Amino acid sequence: MSTPSAVPHIVILGGGFGGLWATRALRSAPVRITLVDRTNHHLFQPLLYQVATAGLSGPDIAAPLRHILRRQRNVTVRMDEARGIDLRQRRVALAGGTLDYDYLLVATGSSHAYFGHDDWARHAPGMKTMDDALAIRRRILSAFEAAEREPDPARRAAWLSFVVIGAGPTGVELAGTLAEIAHHTLRDEFREADPRTAQIHLVEAGPRVLAAMPPTLSAEAQRRLERMGVRVHLGAAVTGVDEAGVQVDAQRIEARTVLWAAGVAASSLGAQLGAPCDRAGRVLVEPDLSLPGHPEVFVAGDLAHVEQDGRLVPGQAPAAKQMGLHVAGAIGDRLAGRTTRAFRYRDYGSLASIGRGAAVVDVRGMRLSGLFAWWFWLVAHIFFLIGFRNRLVVMLDWAWSYCTWQRNARIIVGKGNDDDDDA
Amino acid sequence: MSTPSAVPHIVILGGGFGGLWATRALRSAPVRITLVDRTNHHLFQPLLYQVATAGLSGPDIAAPLRHILRRQRNVTVRMDEARGIDLRQRRVALAGGTLDYDYLLVATGSSHAYFGHDDWARHAPGMKTMDDALAIRRRILSAFEAAEREPDPARRAAWLSFVVIGAGPTGVELAGTLAEIAHHTLRDEFREADPRTAQIHLVEAGPRVLAAMPPTLSAEAQRRLERMGVRVHLGAAVTGVDEAGVQVDAQRIEARTVLWAAGVAASSLGAQLGAPCDRAGRVLVEPDLSLPGHPEVFVAGDLAHVEQDGRLVPGQAPAAKQMGLHVAGAIGDRLAGRTTRAFRYRDYGSLASIGRGAAVVDVRGMRLSGLFAWWFWLVAHIFFLIGFRNRLVVMLDWAWSYCTWQRNARIIVGKGNDDDDDA
Repeated sequence: MSTPSAVPHIVILGGGFGGLWATRALRSAPVRITLVDRTNHHLFQPLLYQVATAGLSGPDIAAPLRHILRRQRNVTVRMDEARGIDLRQRRVALAGGTLDYDYLLVATGSSHAYFGHDDWARHAPGMKTMDDALAIRRRILSAFEAAEREPDPARRAAWLSFVVIGAGPTGVELAGTLAEIAHHTLRDEFREADPRTAQIHLVEAGPRVLAAMPPTLSAEAQRRLERMGVRVHLGAAVTGVDEAGVQVDAQRIEARTVLWAAGVAASSLGAQLGAPCDRAGRVLVEPDLSLPGHPEVFVAGDLAHVEQDGRLVPGQAPAAKQMGLHVAGAIGDRLAGRTTRAFRYRDYGSLASIGRGAAVVDVRGMRLSGLFAWWFWLVAHIFFLIGFRNRLVVMLDWAWSYCTWQRNARIIVGKGNDDDDDA
Repeated sequence: MSTPSAVPHIVILGGGFGGLWATRALRSAPVRITLVDRTNHHLFQPLLYQVATAGLSGPDIAAPLRHILRRQRNVTVRMDEARGIDLRQRRVALAGGTLDYDYLLVATGSSHAYFGHDDWARHAPGMKTMDDALAIRRRILSAFEAAEREPDPARRAAWLSFVVIGAGPTGVELAGTLAEIAHHTLRDEFREADPRTAQIHLVEAGPRVLAAMPPTLSAEAQRRLERMGVRVHLGAAVTGVDEAGVQVDAQRIEARTVLWAAGVAASSLGAQLGAPCDRAGRVLVEPDLSLPGHPEVFVAGDLAHVEQDGRLVPGQAPAAKQMGLHVAGAIGDRLAGRTTRAFRYRDYGSLASIGRGAAVVDVRGMRLSGLFAWWFWLVAHIFFLIGFRNRLVVMLDWAWSYCTWQRNARIIVGKGNDDDDDA
């Protein structure tokens, strides 16, 4: 597949924040880039929960990679899946061919980890890709429909019970939005089942929600979630998940809809790089993000294990972007014969939305909660969305939702192999 | 499932234009209505081709039935699938239970017919539901991606060949939009394959495109399609469809993407009603749209065979709405002990979009083509879209597309069992 060429060939696996930011930073470099992604789009993952909860359409938060990069003439975008990496031959095996590289960036991210209970996956889906989000949307909306059809009160209650496992930002956002949907959005639309009786459980093994935030903001987030009707279970270990519910320590929660926002496992490509990995499968990289013993191979984003000041750099969009930019710089250094510099993560803080008019923000020592924090969250997310048109549509959708309590994408599509569908 | 009640129970099968319009027209009637649909949404089918060609998001042209009907207190919406009708017991068997009725409206529409070649279905999908449209979108976008990966020129050309079978409004709209996508939207985005070399074939067995239109407009539509680069094959019988192409009379067209816009078969529920059906499975109804021998059962929309002035009333949205309204009136007449009136179709004309700035319109003797017709088409479709928010978003999307030649929903989702995916 690869044609001989005077300029070095850089293969970038993954069109997420790490891979895309590296690609764009190399726009003026005298290189030839091939960007490979399994999907045809860059996904704005921070808003994926809004697609899963029917607030936004999929295309609102995704843009075709080749459209984003259409003017960058040194890039070829290839929709394909990396299957293996041959470090000695400097060759990547794809589902549809092979690619030889001079430099390689592996930025294939992460998926869900079920801590050795892979059988939980079909009952408690996680949310990393657009397809994941659409499957979760189908489950949530279908559960209310099943409740309306179900004459037996106990079984109806189980259809109106939702368990979110893991109280990081994604879990908090899912639980808060589910409460909003059940208690407001769907209020007048059912005749047999009453969505206002829905139970939303947020289950966390640790001692507080949003563990990465300062304790005061965790407490504030929990208070707001509880005021919205979410039942927060802390220090609660999930010991079983099946199609009818969840076992949390000694307590059994009967629930037909269980969502997984707990564990993360790095992409399996990491294990093929031959370097030591941490327990989640992240690759222990050199300070410049290169692979030990392979200065021509880099790892960025969720797949890289980087510690700084004794703490793991978080698997979030800003860190992935910074790593992508750093790798682009390091490749430039290598091409120019300079020594590379160590990656340095700049922590701008973190923020999480809880629900309508409520968020928590911890940015550069500034700690906010409530309505102002929510506005901050809103502006930040719209600002970072790629593409002018998406920003405008998302703003419009949100303004409309805010005024009407409605959600714009309440459409069940796909049949899926969800176990719920058998019921 | 059914509880005894003093007011008559009306069961309406299908939440399309026929069923929804009947339901809404009965809002003040002293009845209890159960509206059953397999999906959770009413679909604005006239714009479905825009979802299939990535111009609009699915939720832009669909609205949850229970949201539309939330204020109509005499309606229960049930997402379920009708499996059988017992006319003697006046009972409908659903996948998830049974419903007893006093009056029944069957408005379950139609799907694709392959004229006895059901094996063609997997190679040449048709477009009736949202899932159909998303599957077609996936095929179209994936074909360009496969062309970019394919080094062999002949095989690449087959990935860049598209055949649309049937030149009614849907076929014309699909072919015109495909030409626009290949020759404009994707122009600068590929490095190996050139979308501008894509071949779009429109194959029609009859002597002209848009056979329901006056011959002058058919000729005009064909002229515009050809100017856009569509190859129009008239009087051309399809004798074979496989995964690599189409046999049209003696000519073989190598094409990996084939779309079916030709035959229509009425919903299989029609055959269960015991009345004579036409060749497409449409039920031959009484002049008041009731079932022969069963004044309590009605048929509306695509499933009803109604002739007027020697011509079949077309299977289009306006006819289905009129039938739905008529059935609501007929049920009111029955309840009041009045005799029902005969249905009378009012033909307001028809219109079809061909592509950017081009449409043909035949409304009340007014025949238009070109830019003004296109504006007329645009305004008419936005006007008839349900829901203020959808209208606004669709207008915004269209304005943006018009200025940029871009399409807003170029996201490949779902894995699907498309045969193309095996390649």
